[in-house]
Amino acid sequence: MVSPSPTPQGEQTDTQLAPNGRLRHLLTLSGLSRELLSSLLDAAQSYLADPGVLPIRSRALEGRTVGNLFFEPSTRTRASFDLAGRRLGADVLNLDVNTSSRKKGESILDTIYTLQAMAVDIMVVRDASAGVPAYIARHVDDHVSVMNAGEADISHPTQGLLDLLTIRQHKGGFDKLTVTIVGDIQHSRVARSAAEGLMTLGVGELRFVSPPAFAPDPALVPGARILDDLDEGLADADVVMALRIQRERIGNLDGIPGIDEYFARYGLSHRRMQKAKPDAIVMHPGPMNRGVEIESSLADSEHSVITEQVRNGVAVRMAVLEHVHNTLHGT
Amino acid sequence: MVSPSPTPQGEQTDTQLAPNGRLRHLLTLSGLSRELLSSLLDAAQSYLADPGVLPIRSRALEGRTVGNLFFEPSTRTRASFDLAGRRLGADVLNLDVNTSSRKKGESILDTIYTLQAMAVDIMVVRDASAGVPAYIARHVDDHVSVMNAGEADISHPTQGLLDLLTIRQHKGGFDKLTVTIVGDIQHSRVARSAAEGLMTLGVGELRFVSPPAFAPDPALVPGARILDDLDEGLADADVVMALRIQRERIGNLDGIPGIDEYFARYGLSHRRMQKAKPDAIVMHPGPMNRGVEIESSLADSEHSVITEQVRNGVAVRMAVLEHVHNTLHGT
Amino acid sequence: MVSPSPTPQGEQTDTQLAPNGRLRHLLTLSGLSRELLSSLLDAAQSYLADPGVLPIRSRALEGRTVGNLFFEPSTRTRASFDLAGRRLGADVLNLDVNTSSRKKGESILDTIYTLQAMAVDIMVVRDASAGVPAYIARHVDDHVSVMNAGEADISHPTQGLLDLLTIRQHKGGFDKLTVTIVGDIQHSRVARSAAEGLMTLGVGELRFVSPPAFAPDPALVPGARILDDLDEGLADADVVMALRIQRERIGNLDGIPGIDEYFARYGLSHRRMQKAKPDAIVMHPGPMNRGVEIESSLADSEHSVITEQVRNGVAVRMAVLEHVHNTLHGT
Repeated sequence: MVSPSPTPQGEQTDTQLAPNGRLRHLLTLSGLSRELLSSLLDAAQSYLADPGVLPIRSRALEGRTVGNLFFEPSTRTRASFDLAGRRLGADVLNLDVNTSSRKKGESILDTIYTLQAMAVDIMVVRDASAGVPAYIARHVDDHVSVMNAGEADISHPTQGLLDLLTIRQHKGGFDKLTVTIVGDIQHSRVARSAAEGLMTLGVGELRFVSPPAFAPDPALVPGARILDDLDEGLADADVVMALRIQRERIGNLDGIPGIDEYFARYGLSHRRMQKAKPDAIVMHPGPMNRGVEIESSLADSEHSVITEQVRNGVAVRMAVLEHVHNTLHGT
Repeated sequence: MVSPSPTPQGEQTDTQLAPNGRLRHLLTLSGLSRELLSSLLDAAQSYLADPGVLPIRSRALEGRTVGNLFFEPSTRTRASFDLAGRRLGADVLNLDVNTSSRKKGESILDTIYTLQAMAVDIMVVRDASAGVPAYIARHVDDHVSVMNAGEADISHPTQGLLDLLTIRQHKGGFDKLTVTIVGDIQHSRVARSAAEGLMTLGVGELRFVSPPAFAPDPALVPGARILDDLDEGLADADVVMALRIQRERIGNLDGIPGIDEYFARYGLSHRRMQKAKPDAIVMHPGPMNRGVEIESSLADSEHSVITEQVRNGVAVRMAVLEHVHNTLHGT
Repeated sequence: MVSPSPTPQGEQTDTQLAPNGRLRHLLTLSGLSRELLSSLLDAAQSYLADPGVLPIRSRALEGRTVGNLFFEPSTRTRASFDLAGRRLGADVLNLDVNTSSRKKGESILDTIYTLQAMAVDIMVVRDASAGVPAYIARHVDDHVSVMNAGEADISHPTQGLLDLLTIRQHKGGFDKLTVTIVGDIQHSRVARSAAEGLMTLGVGELRFVSPPAFAPDPALVPGARILDDLDEGLADADVVMALRIQRERIGNLDGIPGIDEYFARYGLSHRRMQKAKPDAIVMHPGPMNRGVEIESSLADSEHSVITEQVRNGVAVRMAVLEHVHNTLHGT
């Protein structure tokens, strides 16, 4: 038994697909077909209800157990998977994995084997290290599925799906769109997963805007435009996504300005958004630093679809959980 | 978006009532009518079962999600709301809000908006800052309700209701009663909420006994007698409530004696209770410091109704949750 | 109200049995009859399903509430009781008892009385102090049951039961078996409970192997062989159980070697297992320190029944929860 290391993406694709082409695990959006992505978005759409009415529920996972293993802190993704599982009828086991077995020196695989033996059939995993979800997926039993709920700066596939769904709801499709993602692209698993999905779905143009020190490796985002001027990046954009900036990063790296200068140069605001199309939508994966990467009043404006992203997150996770469950147990 | 600040009580009353006079949120007992308080107590009474038999359950909240957001630590109130929600058929989401989003700098409203977007329709909130529940209540969507589960030293309305219910069960009514509350009145949200409810229900006489440094602001408890002599406060009392004293406060403030002297002067004991009526009941909101504010054997004696208060707490919370749910979704 | 102190085992037996001889609490395996142990194992066996199929569920505890009170950290035992309770239809309340009431100075009995008043009818308790489960059991109401989920170095009865079940599944019975337990026997509640159960069920021979400083008190394990040579201990053994060794203990006590030397002398390995019977099984209560008390590849080999122990753990806990529930509520 060795420590996990990053898995080449082709291998991940092989790992996450069943022989019939359905998802058995969800590790990355990379390599998933346009048809598969679209069918997941369609399924998620069917789980959306208006605010205030009873959430849509099913018994698709009744009697099954979903384990939430978050080795990094999380409120929204953890709660979202928790509610998604319960609204499908599953039992959800929330494990506070920071405070127990791992402290006692247990390996992550032994924790997984333990849960698997308790009939925890779907493992939702967040980890700060690259490669952990794929590593687990390669070791679990045939009846067990792994959901990547955030992996280092590599991948956050359910976040990518909810971003795609939100864009599709507002814009109908992708091929004529200009999508601009602004902020610390280099360290963002959100940007990576969104980019992978958008490329597969044939987005018109994808732009990344960041200080040079936060720019992505061009090899990882082939076909995208990499810019450091926000006005240029926003010109006629249909969709603008601001990314969270860790305050502690600002002003601490070469080429990264202080907070005021950061906001002035890269902060999304009503004024800057005038460069974008009039009906452009503003997205953010949360949690937000209002006044750092996004003007507070813009986050609450009619441009903002931020809370819709959250709502779509539960629906997307229900769709994915049900999909992998059906892959494993055949429906 | 600004920080919360204390809301004048008249405004809170307006905020928490629906146009038809029913509760939409529960922020404070202040301003609630005698009829409304009585109907909540009646509803709670119907949820009580004898120890050992199956707890009474309903499906009133089936499919709804209740979020427990405790920004201060809590065992009993949190567990009580958790069980109340589940016994009504709701899904309850317990959020450990100390360890995630807020650490990342997210504002409390953004946390609330996030939960709201996940169809968490009832938010149970405890916070150390005055004004937070009302502040949240003014910002949530039409289909969302806020329960104050403890607000600074200001208000703890479900604790007040369970105290009222316990007194009514033992004494039948309020108008001929003398109720004495002993301890750190000034910092006690429990005392404030109990006093508001007792005044509305027409208690015969309300007395507060404390060291002068812990005495309440007379303007906040009009009509109450403020004393610093325990024997005088207990004379012919029907109901005596001891409040928790933070050990660290004792002996650290001007006019506050050390523990032994505190117990000698303000501690409830069998001996001191001889001043009260022979059938007087002894209450405590818990957790208790036995030997500080209350003699251990008194807490376990036939005078004590402390565990009944806890039992009533679940019933009161079921009644309130069902009431606001019906206000929102019309039954 | 006094602090708990160790309870003589005869008294524990009296405390945990109802007048009709059924279990009302589960505090220790000591003193339980062969018939009672066997019937619990039979019941557990009926709750086992193959991996991947739906876990077996019942509604035996529907409407009841089980409280998980872990005053020591735990992943597997806590999750196991949680799932066992839910698969029987109970509501399970997980209390993070390290971070709330006890910090406020509340006594453990007051925490228990509080939960009891909320109709938490089965209390699952883990505590680092000897005597706590029996102490609680002597104070709860007639309708409440206490499960010992790990008590100091004294007792871990559900772990003992799952070990017995695992051995019975592989070996059919006990009377012709040689069972060898290796490691820090002296500080192990797992070893104690396993030994008590094995003795009652008439194990052929029970051996303990450890460095002298970790050897058990012979008076506590009458009839067992106490050895410090692993090869001698493993000779012709049918069942070998390795115990977790706290790394911090190794090399820090007189007579305890460093890690490499410890593994060389007491570590279970393929090579050492050649002394045992060819079909010997290898057990470990987890979490494992691979490379310390057990060779990593042995833990993953066909000898290993470690994940079966975990699977049996949920079934055993379901059986015990249902048994005490039926004792209390008569079925």
